[in-house]
Amino acid sequence: MDVKISIDAMGGDFGPEVTMESLKQVLGSSLDVRASVFGDSAVLRSLIDGTFPSDLQSRVDIVHCDTVVDCDEKPSTALRTKQDSSMGQALSAVATGNSQACISAGNTGALMALSLLYLGLLPGISRPAICAEIPTALGNKLMLDLGANVDCTADQLHQFALLGALTANLALDIDKPSVRLLNVGSESGKGNKLVQAVSQLLEEDSSINYQGFVEGDGIFLGQADVIVCDGFSGNVALKVGEGVAKQLSQQFAQKPTQGIQSSFLRFFSNLLSSGFNSSIQPSLFNGAYLLGVNGVVVKSHGAADVEGFTAALNRGINAARHQLPKALAPILEKQHQ
Amino acid sequence: MDVKISIDAMGGDFGPEVTMESLKQVLGSSLDVRASVFGDSAVLRSLIDGTFPSDLQSRVDIVHCDTVVDCDEKPSTALRTKQDSSMGQALSAVATGNSQACISAGNTGALMALSLLYLGLLPGISRPAICAEIPTALGNKLMLDLGANVDCTADQLHQFALLGALTANLALDIDKPSVRLLNVGSESGKGNKLVQAVSQLLEEDSSINYQGFVEGDGIFLGQADVIVCDGFSGNVALKVGEGVAKQLSQQFAQKPTQGIQSSFLRFFSNLLSSGFNSSIQPSLFNGAYLLGVNGVVVKSHGAADVEGFTAALNRGINAARHQLPKALAPILEKQHQ
Repeated sequence: MDVKISIDAMGGDFGPEVTMESLKQVLGSSLDVRASVFGDSAVLRSLIDGTFPSDLQSRVDIVHCDTVVDCDEKPSTALRTKQDSSMGQALSAVATGNSQACISAGNTGALMALSLLYLGLLPGISRPAICAEIPTALGNKLMLDLGANVDCTADQLHQFALLGALTANLALDIDKPSVRLLNVGSESGKGNKLVQAVSQLLEEDSSINYQGFVEGDGIFLGQADVIVCDGFSGNVALKVGEGVAKQLSQQFAQKPTQGIQSSFLRFFSNLLSSGFNSSIQPSLFNGAYLLGVNGVVVKSHGAADVEGFTAALNRGINAARHQLPKALAPILEKQHQ
Repeated sequence: MDVKISIDAMGGDFGPEVTMESLKQVLGSSLDVRASVFGDSAVLRSLIDGTFPSDLQSRVDIVHCDTVVDCDEKPSTALRTKQDSSMGQALSAVATGNSQACISAGNTGALMALSLLYLGLLPGISRPAICAEIPTALGNKLMLDLGANVDCTADQLHQFALLGALTANLALDIDKPSVRLLNVGSESGKGNKLVQAVSQLLEEDSSINYQGFVEGDGIFLGQADVIVCDGFSGNVALKVGEGVAKQLSQQFAQKPTQGIQSSFLRFFSNLLSSGFNSSIQPSLFNGAYLLGVNGVVVKSHGAADVEGFTAALNRGINAARHQLPKALAPILEKQHQ
């Protein structure tokens, strides 16, 4: 199926050099993909002309944008003043049907705010969630929310469970994905009031293959296809994993490590590639889905290199091929009745 | 200073064989320590007679107890039916002044409930917290709460900050220990409502050297002397660390690892030594303080071997030498006025 993607070409720490080199690779390997790239047209033109083979150039539109969302800009400011930025216009193209996925390595909060503005929410969903694909001992799984919502209601977590399960089914091809809630214990009576309330909602929802609780040490063991948590504990969980992985890696680095690379370790190397500054570690969510909005939006980490941004582009293309939001909408609509 | 400790000799997965062998080592190295051991007197007598040198035997009292708290017993049941258990009587000895610290490898929930019954709370404290000493890149630090309180108020977290700071000062000899709140970002506006409310309380409390927020990846980097969190996120954080450490260690284990042991790695080996069954991983809290009760109570993990239980005994002795609760009470009293 032909797919057209929108790229916020100016986002990320390394800007258009990385986003355009990544696009060149993706266009070279996926012949049915076209792209609109949003940003400073002179800069983008100079990166494309002369480096992209002409058959690839013909599949790229450049859309000039005067402004860029700053990496530390407040979402409310971006919403007010940056609707026409490269990020805003890339999202607008998805809203108008001109493309099927938007990929950005820019400011996460602004991306959420502008996504809500341009795309709106799916039926029955009250907040978007950040959802990462995580590698585990038993294959790739999904985990959400990872920081978009630090105060959640039980209903919102129920919605995240629905979104996660549908996405695992459609994008990861997992039949009846198992869903677990992150908790401090696995027995049914354990946990805080929020988790107890969500657990009851999930038990009553026959559309979800709810399997109870998962503890922190079960996340990367693959004990669930979809792990649901509020953005506070989800963010803490991933950053602790990052910190421990970094420190252990440094200690193990005294020994040669070649040959023991695995997807698990590569995931953490990705996590480790950026600094500790931003409130939502962009690197944690390289190629993370922004679920719940009515369109495919993929957030690449800001410090992504060509390999990382290419992965994010491919994730967006995959979600577009599965027509994720279009497929989710009627199911959620039915749920919501 | 002479110290007398109470040992719940029957607790833990390995029972009196481990607790008594540990006691023998501690008595051999600390000549000013005496102990009361609580449990089945015939069993304890057989483990002490013939194996303890006579000068060590003279420093041990055996107190017979008919019952033991089961590892899966509900705290409410233990409170009703196990006041005379080895755990209950070991705590009672601290309450009556017969000893200065109780160490148990038994059921955490029951230990909390019976501690509250026998010892009560320090002035101005509404809930006890589990506080572990964690090894970091910058030395040992404290983190609390690690699972005793999954729903916390801002006032309780403020109390935990006070308890943690006083304990870091007295037990770890840290002058004006820095206190940070676990959060999803380091900037002042970040976090959920609870963290925002606690942050304001800590800023207004001039007795605390409050330094703002710490993210999950900063815990083991030593970015704070005392890390304060609710028991839900604290428990998730430590268990994620455990899981990631376990999986990375397995991957690195394909290479020889001798010579790269460090306190950080040993900490995680401790974490990894027990199963994944209990709601509060006993192994996480090997030698963890139960802070807020009016007496020294140290929880060893259930799966502790002789080395582990010896460490817990020494932690209890250290806290007793610093007369922790006695020293905390007047400070908290003053705070509370």
